[in-house]
Amino acid sequence: MGSRMAANVARAGHELTVWNRTRARAEAFAAAHGAAVADTPAALGASCDVVVSIVVDGPQVERVLLGDDGVAQRAADGLLCIDMSTIAPREAQAIADRLAQRGIGFLDAPVTGSAPKAEDGTLAIMVGGAADDLERARPVLDAMGETIVHVGPVGHGQAVKVLSNALAAANVVALAQALLVGKRAGLDLERMTEVLPLSAGGSRMAELKAAPMLAHDFAPLFKLEHMLKDVGLALDAAGAAGAPFPAAAEARELLSAAAGRGLGERDFAAVLAVLEDLAGVRLDD
Amino acid sequence: MGSRMAANVARAGHELTVWNRTRARAEAFAAAHGAAVADTPAALGASCDVVVSIVVDGPQVERVLLGDDGVAQRAADGLLCIDMSTIAPREAQAIADRLAQRGIGFLDAPVTGSAPKAEDGTLAIMVGGAADDLERARPVLDAMGETIVHVGPVGHGQAVKVLSNALAAANVVALAQALLVGKRAGLDLERMTEVLPLSAGGSRMAELKAAPMLAHDFAPLFKLEHMLKDVGLALDAAGAAGAPFPAAAEARELLSAAAGRGLGERDFAAVLAVLEDLAGVRLDD
Amino acid sequence: MGSRMAANVARAGHELTVWNRTRARAEAFAAAHGAAVADTPAALGASCDVVVSIVVDGPQVERVLLGDDGVAQRAADGLLCIDMSTIAPREAQAIADRLAQRGIGFLDAPVTGSAPKAEDGTLAIMVGGAADDLERARPVLDAMGETIVHVGPVGHGQAVKVLSNALAAANVVALAQALLVGKRAGLDLERMTEVLPLSAGGSRMAELKAAPMLAHDFAPLFKLEHMLKDVGLALDAAGAAGAPFPAAAEARELLSAAAGRGLGERDFAAVLAVLEDLAGVRLDD
Amino acid sequence: MGSRMAANVARAGHELTVWNRTRARAEAFAAAHGAAVADTPAALGASCDVVVSIVVDGPQVERVLLGDDGVAQRAADGLLCIDMSTIAPREAQAIADRLAQRGIGFLDAPVTGSAPKAEDGTLAIMVGGAADDLERARPVLDAMGETIVHVGPVGHGQAVKVLSNALAAANVVALAQALLVGKRAGLDLERMTEVLPLSAGGSRMAELKAAPMLAHDFAPLFKLEHMLKDVGLALDAAGAAGAPFPAAAEARELLSAAAGRGLGERDFAAVLAVLEDLAGVRLDD
Repeated sequence: MGSRMAANVARAGHELTVWNRTRARAEAFAAAHGAAVADTPAALGASCDVVVSIVVDGPQVERVLLGDDGVAQRAADGLLCIDMSTIAPREAQAIADRLAQRGIGFLDAPVTGSAPKAEDGTLAIMVGGAADDLERARPVLDAMGETIVHVGPVGHGQAVKVLSNALAAANVVALAQALLVGKRAGLDLERMTEVLPLSAGGSRMAELKAAPMLAHDFAPLFKLEHMLKDVGLALDAAGAAGAPFPAAAEARELLSAAAGRGLGERDFAAVLAVLEDLAGVRLDD
Repeated sequence: MGSRMAANVARAGHELTVWNRTRARAEAFAAAHGAAVADTPAALGASCDVVVSIVVDGPQVERVLLGDDGVAQRAADGLLCIDMSTIAPREAQAIADRLAQRGIGFLDAPVTGSAPKAEDGTLAIMVGGAADDLERARPVLDAMGETIVHVGPVGHGQAVKVLSNALAAANVVALAQALLVGKRAGLDLERMTEVLPLSAGGSRMAELKAAPMLAHDFAPLFKLEHMLKDVGLALDAAGAAGAPFPAAAEARELLSAAAGRGLGERDFAAVLAVLEDLAGVRLDD
Repeated sequence: MGSRMAANVARAGHELTVWNRTRARAEAFAAAHGAAVADTPAALGASCDVVVSIVVDGPQVERVLLGDDGVAQRAADGLLCIDMSTIAPREAQAIADRLAQRGIGFLDAPVTGSAPKAEDGTLAIMVGGAADDLERARPVLDAMGETIVHVGPVGHGQAVKVLSNALAAANVVALAQALLVGKRAGLDLERMTEVLPLSAGGSRMAELKAAPMLAHDFAPLFKLEHMLKDVGLALDAAGAAGAPFPAAAEARELLSAAAGRGLGERDFAAVLAVLEDLAGVRLDD
Repeated sequence: MGSRMAANVARAGHELTVWNRTRARAEAFAAAHGAAVADTPAALGASCDVVVSIVVDGPQVERVLLGDDGVAQRAADGLLCIDMSTIAPREAQAIADRLAQRGIGFLDAPVTGSAPKAEDGTLAIMVGGAADDLERARPVLDAMGETIVHVGPVGHGQAVKVLSNALAAANVVALAQALLVGKRAGLDLERMTEVLPLSAGGSRMAELKAAPMLAHDFAPLFKLEHMLKDVGLALDAAGAAGAPFPAAAEARELLSAAAGRGLGERDFAAVLAVLEDLAGVRLDD
């Protein structure tokens, strides 16, 4: 994900320096896209106006921004960090607070949609943070996403993102159940999945995941273990707010069951497998 | 619904005769659209090549097609009946069998989407029946829907329709839960609902029902009691097929609770009300 | 069930006439217990003060009491019918109304518990009907159950019974899930099931069904298809009352999935099988 | 809880030294029951053969056993610690490992049941740990519980306990739903709750919580926020084991909703309140 985002930034004409834990990957990218390579995150922070991070979880964001060799170590006042990972809203707030103490700005800017801008226009970025920080970030964000929505203060980008993903998980579970009923009822699932996106039951998940489910093609576009993590973050946020989210809780149990049988590295559509066992039928039979 | 569908048929240049239980409504329509009025369904059957029905439930379809004064009474061999109501797949099959004994063809052709063709292009028709019957019906169906999908034999149009509606119910319940978590977490719901349709959590329901939910505008586009009926039909079909559909079962309990407090005549998005009580907060506060 | 109940009535010293669809079974019973045999339900009605029925469903109750050769045909004014089947509350009310028109009293008196009185003392009878009818019935009911509770007017015995069974279904599903988590977590399930009945998580289901689940012994004490029927009746009653019962709805989907794979004739504890497939582990491994 | 347990130990004739964060409480207890008072947990560890802890959560157990002034500080080799709190199985294992490095034994021994031994005989203790440690602990445990079950190695006492509590939460939710359906259906709930414990739907929760629910008496016997914590621990354990526990997940969302409206300090039966709002009726009306 990160390299495709960075390629879009380079393509838009921004001067670009990159860093990756695996230096060879950074160098290969730099050679292909005309970017410089930094030795450490700290070197990025010292030489850039805006630093964009995209890693796996909150502790990794913390390390790359605030760790021993992190972005903040030698940063000038006025640096702006944009984190595009998906992490807990509370983690985003905590990181922003610590950066603010050093005069560094922060936006949480997780993305949603199936592909970066160059390939299709659906990528949206949900931004949490101060309006003036967003204005400074906009040229870079515009290079990466078709739609930039300022959803609120720091942490709210993440909050909307994890709720959106939890909703996706709930929708994909319901979709799989409907397809399995159709299968057992002897319906033509090709036709059913042709109609679904046009119907009241249509959803992004019906558009993106019905066909892979029919074909049992679970090559990972978004790993099940990452979806499980995000649904967990959504439920934590729901619990902290004192609001129930039963559809997400049900989805999490099913994703957890799928992870428990070794499907964590597959696409999250592989949650189908546990629902197939429940229904006693396979979609690809 | 029926009158808008019929208007599209007239607009497409077909010769049209109409019947309605309330004769004045039929006459007003005929005057406006240049159609004839039949005295009884039997009169329609005697004078038309194709008869389209759209009523509330299976027993009504049976009465209008097979009742004392029904379409089949004086129909010539070769008549084709197209039923666009939403009824149980088994009811459709039973009606088709009885019509077949009299040499009358039958298609179940429920519609989905938010509006008839003339107003927006999203209306889809899911057709169950024989391929040659569908070819005869196509000129009429093309006048009413943008997309005509032949999903299988008689009853399968209904089966896909009720599964689609059950999925819509499950999606709208999950959507309401996500919005309520957002509300309690202090998110800006206008922004959240702006992003949702672009995100992995996007759905037809997020596009159509999020705004009415925020505004508590439950003017009925599709009545809650009708959605409750359809979800029940989907669960009956699931039970008959021996496949579980827990997301629909949960949705039905919530719709049932909403009906229990007098919301049956409102739009089905009013299921929000019971989830608001569960969450202890209102979206329109 | 019926023969064990009747044996208790004979044992208590009541004069007893029996009828069964299979005459040989009635005669075998009569020979063993000193009872007379009636040719038809109508003959029972003509010769007895109190008639007790115990069959499979509402239509069967209707036939045996109100059919062509039914109990009501030649009954004297003042006859009292006690139905101990489990049927829909509304069916009980409808039957009672029709009997009342002929001057015949009616009690719905479904039973609960694991065995008739003689074998263990836990059998309870939930009686719906008029208090004076119950007083007339009490000598017979006392012969069959340890505890007789007058829960309300006609139909309320059934209403409490189906809610109780739905609760049992919900509890057995939760129990199976807890045992499967224990299995995957490597717990000693023998010890766990020893403790459960003593704990806050204890239930009649934990006492009766945990051991058969561990052993995969699904010899039918109460058939899964009958439990599925009863949970359906409870959900119908819930829907009619406009109150949600999500735990029962979830249980029904799982029972339905179990029935869908051919377990309808096994004990309802066999719902474990579908939950095992969901969890990816078997309790008897 | 702790003081009642300690009183039973004193009553059984064991020499007893107590410590409490609030020294006055320890002294009052000591005066009433003939015990000594320790200045610190470390002093307990230095002077006793067996130390029993019962606090709120894992971090508190860690502090009292392993903190600066904790039990382990000056303990002799061969000390045995028995923790009767409810904490995560993994926390118990981690604490046991650290104690073992200092030559100190550990048992996790959470309790279940409604009251200590002296008042009623239902208290059970689920013990995780080595068999010989349990033999040393038995005289003390026998003073506190009627039934002592050795469920497995360290952590398994907690694992069984949290699953039992999660099951209790699922059962109490289903019970509340059944009672609310009964309420809306016009049943006599006093009679219904009289029959339930005798029926297949009977449970410890039906025995203990039905009457308080009918009376809306939520004086805390076990606080809702503690039940919410325990169900969370059970779900964490389920997730770690890769097994789904949907009934517990649903219960947690409802408990979370109850906590969200300020019921965390009430008895967990107060989860009824959110289900009442869902059903649109109150049990005590």
